[in-house]
Amino acid sequence: MRLSRFYLPLLKETPSEAQIASHQLMLRAGMVRQESAGIYAWLPLGYRVLKKIEQIVREEQNRAGAVEMLMPTIQSAELWRESGRYEAYGKEMLRIKDRADREMLFGPTNEEMITEIFRAGVRSYKDLPKMLYHIQWKFRDEVRPRFGVMRGREFLMKDTYSFDADQAGARNSYNKMFVAYLRTFARMGLTSIPMRADTGPIGGDLSHEFIILADTGESAVFCDRKLLELDAPGADTDFDSDLQPMIDRYTSYYAATEEKHDAAEFDKAVAESDRISARGIEVGHIFYFGDKYSKPMKAVVTGADGKDRPVEMGSYGVGVSRLVGAIIEAYHDDAGCKWPAPVAPFHVGLINLKVGDAAADEASIRAYAALEDAGVEVLYDDTPARPGEKFARMDLIGLPHQLIIGPRGLAAGKVEVKRRADGHRDEIALGAAIDMLKRDVASALKV
Amino acid sequence: MRLSRFYLPLLKETPSEAQIASHQLMLRAGMVRQESAGIYAWLPLGYRVLKKIEQIVREEQNRAGAVEMLMPTIQSAELWRESGRYEAYGKEMLRIKDRADREMLFGPTNEEMITEIFRAGVRSYKDLPKMLYHIQWKFRDEVRPRFGVMRGREFLMKDTYSFDADQAGARNSYNKMFVAYLRTFARMGLTSIPMRADTGPIGGDLSHEFIILADTGESAVFCDRKLLELDAPGADTDFDSDLQPMIDRYTSYYAATEEKHDAAEFDKAVAESDRISARGIEVGHIFYFGDKYSKPMKAVVTGADGKDRPVEMGSYGVGVSRLVGAIIEAYHDDAGCKWPAPVAPFHVGLINLKVGDAAADEASIRAYAALEDAGVEVLYDDTPARPGEKFARMDLIGLPHQLIIGPRGLAAGKVEVKRRADGHRDEIALGAAIDMLKRDVASALKV
Repeated sequence: MRLSRFYLPLLKETPSEAQIASHQLMLRAGMVRQESAGIYAWLPLGYRVLKKIEQIVREEQNRAGAVEMLMPTIQSAELWRESGRYEAYGKEMLRIKDRADREMLFGPTNEEMITEIFRAGVRSYKDLPKMLYHIQWKFRDEVRPRFGVMRGREFLMKDTYSFDADQAGARNSYNKMFVAYLRTFARMGLTSIPMRADTGPIGGDLSHEFIILADTGESAVFCDRKLLELDAPGADTDFDSDLQPMIDRYTSYYAATEEKHDAAEFDKAVAESDRISARGIEVGHIFYFGDKYSKPMKAVVTGADGKDRPVEMGSYGVGVSRLVGAIIEAYHDDAGCKWPAPVAPFHVGLINLKVGDAAADEASIRAYAALEDAGVEVLYDDTPARPGEKFARMDLIGLPHQLIIGPRGLAAGKVEVKRRADGHRDEIALGAAIDMLKRDVASALKV
Repeated sequence: MRLSRFYLPLLKETPSEAQIASHQLMLRAGMVRQESAGIYAWLPLGYRVLKKIEQIVREEQNRAGAVEMLMPTIQSAELWRESGRYEAYGKEMLRIKDRADREMLFGPTNEEMITEIFRAGVRSYKDLPKMLYHIQWKFRDEVRPRFGVMRGREFLMKDTYSFDADQAGARNSYNKMFVAYLRTFARMGLTSIPMRADTGPIGGDLSHEFIILADTGESAVFCDRKLLELDAPGADTDFDSDLQPMIDRYTSYYAATEEKHDAAEFDKAVAESDRISARGIEVGHIFYFGDKYSKPMKAVVTGADGKDRPVEMGSYGVGVSRLVGAIIEAYHDDAGCKWPAPVAPFHVGLINLKVGDAAADEASIRAYAALEDAGVEVLYDDTPARPGEKFARMDLIGLPHQLIIGPRGLAAGKVEVKRRADGHRDEIALGAAIDMLKRDVASALKV
C-alpha cells in the first residue's frame, strides 16, 4: 500500500480524554475515531489489525471444530422473554421499537437466539455434538464507556455455543474451547491466564476468564507465576483426543479473579516468590451452563433411550475489538505501538527518504514490488514529508520492520533495516535486506 | 468439512411465506433462518456464500484503489441533522434512544459519517483523491420486508465514498467504481447492466444502477440487447489510466430503469429485435453528488490556489446480502441451487454411498484429503442417510460438482462425477476424478 493512497490521519496532540496508552496510541496513530461515546469508526490502519485478530480467532475456532455462521445484530424482545433475561438485563441492553412498535434490541450476546435456532433444527442426540460460532458486533450501553475500544459500547465479539447430549460431552466441548483460547491469544503474542471466574449474567457452574496481565487492567487478579511459563498447546493438538490432562495442567496452578479469590488458599497453594497480585484485562470468557437456556426455551434432544432432555450448553466469548487495545497495552513504548507480526497492520514500513530522487525511487519501488510479491505486506511511505516526520510516523504506527532507503546509503551500496521491537539496526545491501525481511516475516507468521 | 460436523438444517416443505425461488431455496437449503420480519440469521451454508461474495467485492474495491475501513452501525442523530437528512429520512430509519436519552439511529447509509471523518483528517487538495469503503450491516425499517434477503431490514452493504478536489477528479473516481462494479458482478457469474437511474434520497446529478435481469426483479427495466454481449473489463485493467472510453462503450447503448425510461428515445435508439423490456434486480448503485454533503457539513479542502472549497464526493453501494438471492434467481432449477464456483459454499460435494463399507470409506477419505490439500473445498457427506436422500440434498444445496463413491462402482474401478450446472456425468477412476475436479475448480476460480 502506498501511503499517498492510504488514509492515515495522525494526531499531533494526545487527546485529553484518553487515559491509557492503548487509547492514546489508537487515536494518535489514526487507527480509530470516536463517533459517539464508546462508539468508534475503525480507520484503515486500525481496521487491518482488527481483521488480523478476527482471522486468528476464526482459524483457531475452525481448528477446534466450531462452525461459523452469523446472527443478526437486531433481536426481538420476545426471544429474551422466553429465557427470562429481557427484564433482568437492565439498562445495558439497548432497547428499540421498530416502526410497527415491536420491541426489539441490539444484541449484547446470543444465547437466546442460538438456542432458538438449535431447537428448530436438531432433534436427536445423534446430531450432537455441535459447536457454532459467529463474529458479530454487539452493543452494551455502558454507563461510562472508557479506555477507548477496551470498554466501548459497540464492540466486536466472537461467541461460540456448544450443544451436547450430556454433561461429559459438554465438558469435552468446554475443554476444546479452553485449548483453542490458549492458542488464539498465544498466536497474537499474548500470554493468557485462564482464571476461575464468576459466571455473572450468563449463569452456569463452570467458568474461566482468560486474562492478560497489564497495569491498566480493570480487574485485580491473583495467580501462580508458573502459569506464565507454560507453553501454549501446539498446532498439532488433536481436538478429538482427550484434552482433560492438558486442562488439568493449567488448572492445577492457582489463578483467580478478585471475585473468586481466596487469600488463604492462595497463600497455601503458592510459594511466596511465585505469588502474583496484579491487574488484568479480560480477553476471553468461557462458560458451561447446562440447561439454563435449553430448559426454559424447550431445546430438547431425544437420547439413545428415547427420552427427550434439554440439550447441555456452553458459551465462549472472545473480545475481538478489545484485543486491539490489549495488545497495544502489552506492546508499546513512548514512541508508539510495537505490533507483533501476526497482528501488525503491515509487516514492513518502507521509508523512501527522498521521493523524487531517481535512485531512491527506483530502489524503493523495487523493494516494494519484491516484498509484496512474496506476500509481505508493505506500507510504502512515498510522500514528500521530511525524514524526521517519516521516522516518527513509522515508529508511532509500530510496524515490526522498517526498511529505510535514501540516496546517501544507496551510493554506498546500503539500505537500513530497523526492527521496531528492540530498535536493532542493520545496514546492508538492498537485495540482502529484502531477503532478510522475507525470511523474518515468514518465520514470524508461521503457525 | 464433514457434513456430520456441519450444521445444515434442511426443510422438507417450502415455507408458504416464500414467494420467489431464491427465498424458498435459501430456507429449504438451510442457508438462512428468519429471526424477525426481514431479519435473518445466516446459517453456516448461507454464511459461506455471503463471505465469498463479500470477498469478491473487497478484492475488486482494492484493485480499483479504494481503501477499506469500518464504520459503526449506531450513529448519532446530530450528524444527520447537519446534512438535513434526519427528519427527511422518514420511518425507514430505525431511531433509537440510548440510556442517557441521546437520539441515535441504526445507520441506513454513511454519507454523513464519512464526511465527518474526512473533514477531521484532510485539509489539502494534495491529499486527494481518496476512496474509502466499508462492508457493514445496515438497517432500513421497510414497511413490508419481503423476498427473503432481497428486501430485508438488516442487510449487508458495501459502500464506498470518493473525495476529489474537482469535478474532473470526481468523474474519474466515478469511472473507477463503474468499472469495478462490472468486474465484481461478472466474477460472480452475473451479467450486470449499468442503467441511468434516479438518484433518490442520496441526491446528485449522475447515477447508474447495476441491474441483473430476472423475472422476479422488482423494477421494470429497458435496454439494448447488445449490452448483454459486452465483455466485462479484464483483470489487467489499469485503474490509473483514462477509463472514460470504456465507460462510453457501455453508456452508448440505451439502458434505463422505469423512472428514467423514455419510450420514444428507446424506440429511436434501439432496433426492434434488440429492445429488451424486462424485470431487473438492483445489485449496485453509484452516485456522483458533488457538494451535497460536504457543503452543509463544511468538509472543505484548500486548493492549489489557496482557496477553500467543499470536497467533491460520490458514493457507491453494492447489496452484498441481496446478491446471495440475486445469484440464486439466476442459477437454480427445480431441484435446487446451481452455484457458480466462485461463490459456491463448497466446490465439491462428496457423497459416500455406503458409510461403514471399508472400501467406500477409504476411497472417500482419500479423495477428501487429496482435494482439500489442493485447496478445493469439499463438503463430505459422511452421514448414514440413504443414497436417495444424499443425492437430493446435494442437488438442493447446489455445489458445482458432486463426487459419488460407492462399493459397486469401486469394485468396477469407477467413481462418478456429476456437474450440477448441466447434469453431465463421468464415470472414471478415482485418481482421474480427483485430478479432473482439481483442474476444473482451479480453472473456474481463476480471476
